[in-house]
Amino acid sequence: MAQKKQNSSPDSKTFPKLIIASTDESADLLYAGGFNAPDEFLYYETGREKCIVVSPLEYARAVSEANTGVKVIERSRFVNKENPADSIAVNLSRTLGIDHWLVPARFPLLEAEKLREAGILVTCSQSNSFFPERECKTGSEIKAVRQSQAATEEIMREFRQFLIDSKINTKGYLEFHGKVLTSDFLRMELEGNFKRMGYTANRTIFAHGPQGAEPHNIGSGPIRAGEPVVADIFPRSDLTGYWGDMTRTYVKGKAAPVVKRAFKAVKKASEAAKGMLRAGVTGAEAHQTAADILVQAGFPTGCGRDGKPCGFFHGLGHGVGLEIHENPRLSPLNPHPLQTGNIVSVEPGLYYSDWGGIRLEDLVVITRNGIQCLNTMEMELEIP
Amino acid sequence: MAQKKQNSSPDSKTFPKLIIASTDESADLLYAGGFNAPDEFLYYETGREKCIVVSPLEYARAVSEANTGVKVIERSRFVNKENPADSIAVNLSRTLGIDHWLVPARFPLLEAEKLREAGILVTCSQSNSFFPERECKTGSEIKAVRQSQAATEEIMREFRQFLIDSKINTKGYLEFHGKVLTSDFLRMELEGNFKRMGYTANRTIFAHGPQGAEPHNIGSGPIRAGEPVVADIFPRSDLTGYWGDMTRTYVKGKAAPVVKRAFKAVKKASEAAKGMLRAGVTGAEAHQTAADILVQAGFPTGCGRDGKPCGFFHGLGHGVGLEIHENPRLSPLNPHPLQTGNIVSVEPGLYYSDWGGIRLEDLVVITRNGIQCLNTMEMELEIP
Repeated sequence: MAQKKQNSSPDSKTFPKLIIASTDESADLLYAGGFNAPDEFLYYETGREKCIVVSPLEYARAVSEANTGVKVIERSRFVNKENPADSIAVNLSRTLGIDHWLVPARFPLLEAEKLREAGILVTCSQSNSFFPERECKTGSEIKAVRQSQAATEEIMREFRQFLIDSKINTKGYLEFHGKVLTSDFLRMELEGNFKRMGYTANRTIFAHGPQGAEPHNIGSGPIRAGEPVVADIFPRSDLTGYWGDMTRTYVKGKAAPVVKRAFKAVKKASEAAKGMLRAGVTGAEAHQTAADILVQAGFPTGCGRDGKPCGFFHGLGHGVGLEIHENPRLSPLNPHPLQTGNIVSVEPGLYYSDWGGIRLEDLVVITRNGIQCLNTMEMELEIP
Repeated sequence: MAQKKQNSSPDSKTFPKLIIASTDESADLLYAGGFNAPDEFLYYETGREKCIVVSPLEYARAVSEANTGVKVIERSRFVNKENPADSIAVNLSRTLGIDHWLVPARFPLLEAEKLREAGILVTCSQSNSFFPERECKTGSEIKAVRQSQAATEEIMREFRQFLIDSKINTKGYLEFHGKVLTSDFLRMELEGNFKRMGYTANRTIFAHGPQGAEPHNIGSGPIRAGEPVVADIFPRSDLTGYWGDMTRTYVKGKAAPVVKRAFKAVKKASEAAKGMLRAGVTGAEAHQTAADILVQAGFPTGCGRDGKPCGFFHGLGHGVGLEIHENPRLSPLNPHPLQTGNIVSVEPGLYYSDWGGIRLEDLVVITRNGIQCLNTMEMELEIP
C-alpha cells in the first residue's frame, strides 16, 4: 500500500514535521512525543530539535512523561497576546523561522489553511504512515504488545470459563448462576475486569449465532447452546497505549456439522498463513494463502441469497501497535513485502448469515525466517 | 468564540456537507449519522438527502443504528474497480454531481487535496462548530447527559465511601481493608465499576496533595489523611455517547486552615456563577464572576515562587455533550451570550503547589431564567 511510497519518499527527510492533534486521534503524536493527552497539542521536529507544545494545564505532566530528547514548551509562548485566537502554529513557525512543514495525511484542514494564508508551505504526507518506522516494532514495543496480548488471553480464559460454568436451560439458553447469559452481560463484566488490570476495552465482540455473520456486530441478547459465539477481544493498555487483539469462536455443547467444517477450514487457513509468513512475503500473498484454503475447503466468498456478503470477505490481518488497525495490512491491496518487527493479526474468518461466523485471530511478530506468535491459547470449538 | 461566527455564516446553508472520520474522532459524525464506528467512514448531506457510506463489514449494523432519515450506502458503490486506492470521496462527488463541499475544521488534509486535485471545491468551516445546533441540547440529549451524570454521582459516592471506610494508619496514610489506599487502585476499581454500568471512563483524576495543583495530573500513589484529594470523574455512556463530568475535593480527617479557606472560596465562586448563569449571559461574564470572588477571598492568580502557574488559571467551564470539552466555553475568550439548552460545567478551582488543589464541578443546563443543575451531591470537604 501507500506506506511503501512514503518509506522511499525523500520529503520525509527534507522538511520539518508538524502534528496538531490529541493522542486519542493520533498514534503518531503519542509515538513521537511519548506524552498522552486527550486535548489537542502540537508536536514538531526539525533537524535541530523535537518538541511538544502544551497548555499550562499539562506542562508539568508533559515534562515528566515526554520521550527522552523531546523538549516541552508552554503554548503561551506562541500566543499572540493581542489576538489570542491567532493560530499557534503560525506564530510558532514564525518564531522558529520555518517556512515549510511536512504534515500527516489527517492534519486538520483549517490549520493547514491558516499556515498557507500566512505564507508558510504545507506538504501533506501521501500516506497514513507519517513515521514509517512505526511499522517495525522495537524490542520494548514488542514487549508492550506481548503484555497487552497476555491480558487479552487472561480475559479470553475468563470468557471460556463462563461458558464452562454455564448450564443449558430447558429452552436451550445458557444460564450462569441462574441468570440467562447474554452478550451484553459478558461485555460489561469482562470490560470491567480489563479496567481492574489497567486496560480499556470497548465494543468487545460476543456475537452469537447469525450476529456472528457480521464481523463488526458486537452481539447482544441471550446466548444459545449449539450456536457459535465469536469473541473478539481488543484492549488497550492505559499505561503503554499498545493494543492486544485476539479472537476465538466457541460453541457451548455440540456444533452443527457445517460449523465444525468451517471451524476446521479457518483453523487450517490460520496455520497455513502462519506457516508461510516471514519478512519478504507480501501482505497480498499471505491473504491469498488463507483465502485459497477456505475455497478449497468448500467455503466460497461472494453474495448470499439475502444479498449480503458471505464467505471470507475481509483482509487476513492488520498491523497492531499504538493503533488497533495500522499498517502493514495482510490484504489483496498490499503488494509490499513484510518486514522484520512488523506485528500483525492473522484472522481468517467465514461468515454465512444462516448460521453465523467463525473467526480465529492470533498476533504474530514477523521475523527474518518466520514468526513469533504472541498467543498461547489453543483454537478449540466445542466447550463441554 | 469562533462558533458564533459560524452560527451566522451563510455558507453552512449553501453547500452540501461532507465528513470523513471515525466517530472516535468526530462527535459531529456521531451526531449527524447516529452510527458509532471506530473505523473511518463518510457522512454527507445535500439539500436532498443525508447519507453515511460504510464498509461492507459495517453495513448491516449501520442500517439498524443510523438516525431516522439517514440513508446507508455501501462504500463499494464508490470504489473504482481498476484503482481501488482512488479516493472514495472523489468518486462519490462525481457520482452525485457535487462540485463544492463544506467540510469541518478538522477534515483530513489529504482528502481535501484529493478532492481539489479532482476539481472539486472544498470550503473549510472556520470554527469547530460544524453543526452549531449541537450546542443547544434537545430534550433527549439533556436526558442522556442527565443519565451519564447520575452514573457519575454513583461512582463519586463510591469514592466517598472508600474514604469513609478507610482507617488512618500510624504513618498517616489511608488503609482500606488493611491495604494502603492509592489513586491507582481507586482509578482501576472505579473505572471497572463504570464498565459494569455501561460507561467508559479513562484518566479519572484522584490527585492528592501537591499533585492536585496540576489540574490534569491524574494522581498516583498512597493517599494521606489531611491532604485534599481532587476527584474529577468523567465517563462516557457506551450506549448514547454522551458524557458526564463532575469534581469534588475531599480531605480524610482534618484539613489545614488554608485548605478550608480555599474550599469555602471555591464553593462560593461556584454558587455565585450558578446564581448568575442564564441565557444571554456571556461565557466571559460567568468566568469573571467566579474569578472576582476568588481574588476577593485572598487567592490571587499568577505565578508561584517555583515559577508554576497558581490560583485560578483555567476557564470556569466548558460545554459537555458528545464531546467532553465542547462549545460553549465559560472563559474570558468567549464574549458570546449563552443560549437555552447549552449544557456547561461550572468548575472553579484553586491550585497552589505547596498544598495542592481544590476544584468543585457541577453540570448545569442553561435556561431562559437561570439553570437546571444536573448534580445532587453536596459540596463538602472533610470526611470523618
